[in-house]
Amino acid sequence: MASVRLVVSSGEPAGIGPDLLLALAADPAFTPSDELVVLGDRDVFAARAEALGLPFDWPAADDSAATSAGFRFHHLAAANPVTPGRLDPGNARHVLDMLDHAADGCRDGRYAAMVTAPLHKGVINDAGIPFTGHTEYLADRVGGTPVMMLVADTLRVALATTHLPLARVPTAITGETLTTVIETLHAAMVDWLGKPQPRLLVAGLNPHAGESGHLGDEEIRVIGPTLEAMRERGIQAIGPLPADTLFTPRHLDGADAVLAMYHDQGLPVLKYAGFGRAVNVTLGLPIVRTSVDHGTALDLAGSGRAEHGSLAEAIRLAGEITRRAAA
Amino acid sequence: MASVRLVVSSGEPAGIGPDLLLALAADPAFTPSDELVVLGDRDVFAARAEALGLPFDWPAADDSAATSAGFRFHHLAAANPVTPGRLDPGNARHVLDMLDHAADGCRDGRYAAMVTAPLHKGVINDAGIPFTGHTEYLADRVGGTPVMMLVADTLRVALATTHLPLARVPTAITGETLTTVIETLHAAMVDWLGKPQPRLLVAGLNPHAGESGHLGDEEIRVIGPTLEAMRERGIQAIGPLPADTLFTPRHLDGADAVLAMYHDQGLPVLKYAGFGRAVNVTLGLPIVRTSVDHGTALDLAGSGRAEHGSLAEAIRLAGEITRRAAA
Repeated sequence: MASVRLVVSSGEPAGIGPDLLLALAADPAFTPSDELVVLGDRDVFAARAEALGLPFDWPAADDSAATSAGFRFHHLAAANPVTPGRLDPGNARHVLDMLDHAADGCRDGRYAAMVTAPLHKGVINDAGIPFTGHTEYLADRVGGTPVMMLVADTLRVALATTHLPLARVPTAITGETLTTVIETLHAAMVDWLGKPQPRLLVAGLNPHAGESGHLGDEEIRVIGPTLEAMRERGIQAIGPLPADTLFTPRHLDGADAVLAMYHDQGLPVLKYAGFGRAVNVTLGLPIVRTSVDHGTALDLAGSGRAEHGSLAEAIRLAGEITRRAAA
Repeated sequence: MASVRLVVSSGEPAGIGPDLLLALAADPAFTPSDELVVLGDRDVFAARAEALGLPFDWPAADDSAATSAGFRFHHLAAANPVTPGRLDPGNARHVLDMLDHAADGCRDGRYAAMVTAPLHKGVINDAGIPFTGHTEYLADRVGGTPVMMLVADTLRVALATTHLPLARVPTAITGETLTTVIETLHAAMVDWLGKPQPRLLVAGLNPHAGESGHLGDEEIRVIGPTLEAMRERGIQAIGPLPADTLFTPRHLDGADAVLAMYHDQGLPVLKYAGFGRAVNVTLGLPIVRTSVDHGTALDLAGSGRAEHGSLAEAIRLAGEITRRAAA
């Protein structure tokens, strides 16, 4: 199994991103299968390593060398000194520099995939830069129509809508948007996860999937006909199913992914099931990107108490997807 | 621990209700702590027992006798002969007769609590009787403002709204409705579950609990101020919390109940966590009522393949609540 070269954005420098990467590299239970080019400020990493009592002796990344498994470092300077836990809008550009470097490198083929540690939306906005999230930023830069999927072990939950007020969800789900999302999910399961005939379980929008129209008609007007059309094209899109029976063994056994209609219909159960190991995978972009499923945890930065299970999984999955897509 | 007298409605006679009760009575792992007065048609039970190869030798219920643990039978005649799996609107009145008998008996003090096996809403409506569900029917009969709570082991999830189209959820949550629900939940935790100072985790309505107003303002306008007012009254109503981080050990440990804003925000994770053992408890009525969390499973009636774990838990919990409320 040949190594691929992955790029890892360490995210908000005052958050736990540097901590997680340093701890992961020192974890005897983690043996990277791939070359991991970590992006960050070298002074931040050196200081954080000292605070945590961990080594920071990774060689400098070298794009011209052959790929080999292990940690490498690519320095991108932060504008201001960093204190763990203290946000500084002056370093917002540094965080975006990492994303730009990673996304462009994936687009241009220098990296096989990118992995992102958490950033802090608020401080980027405070710096006067409009920013709604990693996913939207990356889509702006490299194109595509992103679909968010979270993975915990064998449970995979994609979302038809993501960060919308609940009141706007019903009208955001149209035959057109749903078709695009299902096509994207289907393609990712085939190409990235190695499921040649993926079975997709699709939730209804309303409780009990509308109960034959008694509890809302979106299933009858929109979701049902869209799924029927997908099935006529040979895509196994099963549903619409009631969300509270969908996540039980009777339905999940033999299914490859779940499509929830909105954020809080799908993610509470995913994060309950996969606490500490869940990974966010962005589908629908021309590049492969995985991410931790947690935030910057500013209060834990420099403490040694941050858990790197989700980052380890995000790195592992990025490598797995990339090798499969290349095969 | 003195026994109490519980009444158990066997629900839709063509469904699995009779099967579950017969199987439960024959299960050596189940020893009832209470007297269980099962309501049903004696011919239906005798025929189902024969089909399943199980005994049906329960003594007739006798309200005038002292309470003693074990199964008793109270015959209420079905209008028409029953075939397992085949719904008959002619027997809809029979199903409601059981509910009337049970609810009136609880209200009048003949029974300490009621437990319900599943019924089929559709066939009752087909019989020309408007019927939206057990809970609403019972509230009409005995009064009160019901709140639905599901319980699986130590996870308890109550709902601020229940069977509403998703598009109607945001406007259904007002300071007034939320206050009533939280008061009801708090009182039930104190009086029924024995938690003198219950900690209630309350979800936001929007993803990330609105993310400071960026993803909806109901948390700022309605939910936040309502919770603040509850806390000023000494009720530990914590939140609004993002639903996808609420259901993780960091928040759940030390909490007594979760209040979700709507059906599919709370029940998928509860049913995932408690598959086959979840119990529905109706709060806010002047009587105690627990229920299985599943439907009539018409295709399993008479097959011997129906699982009685949820019914066993519903009976156990009804007894536990009743004894604590009486203490």
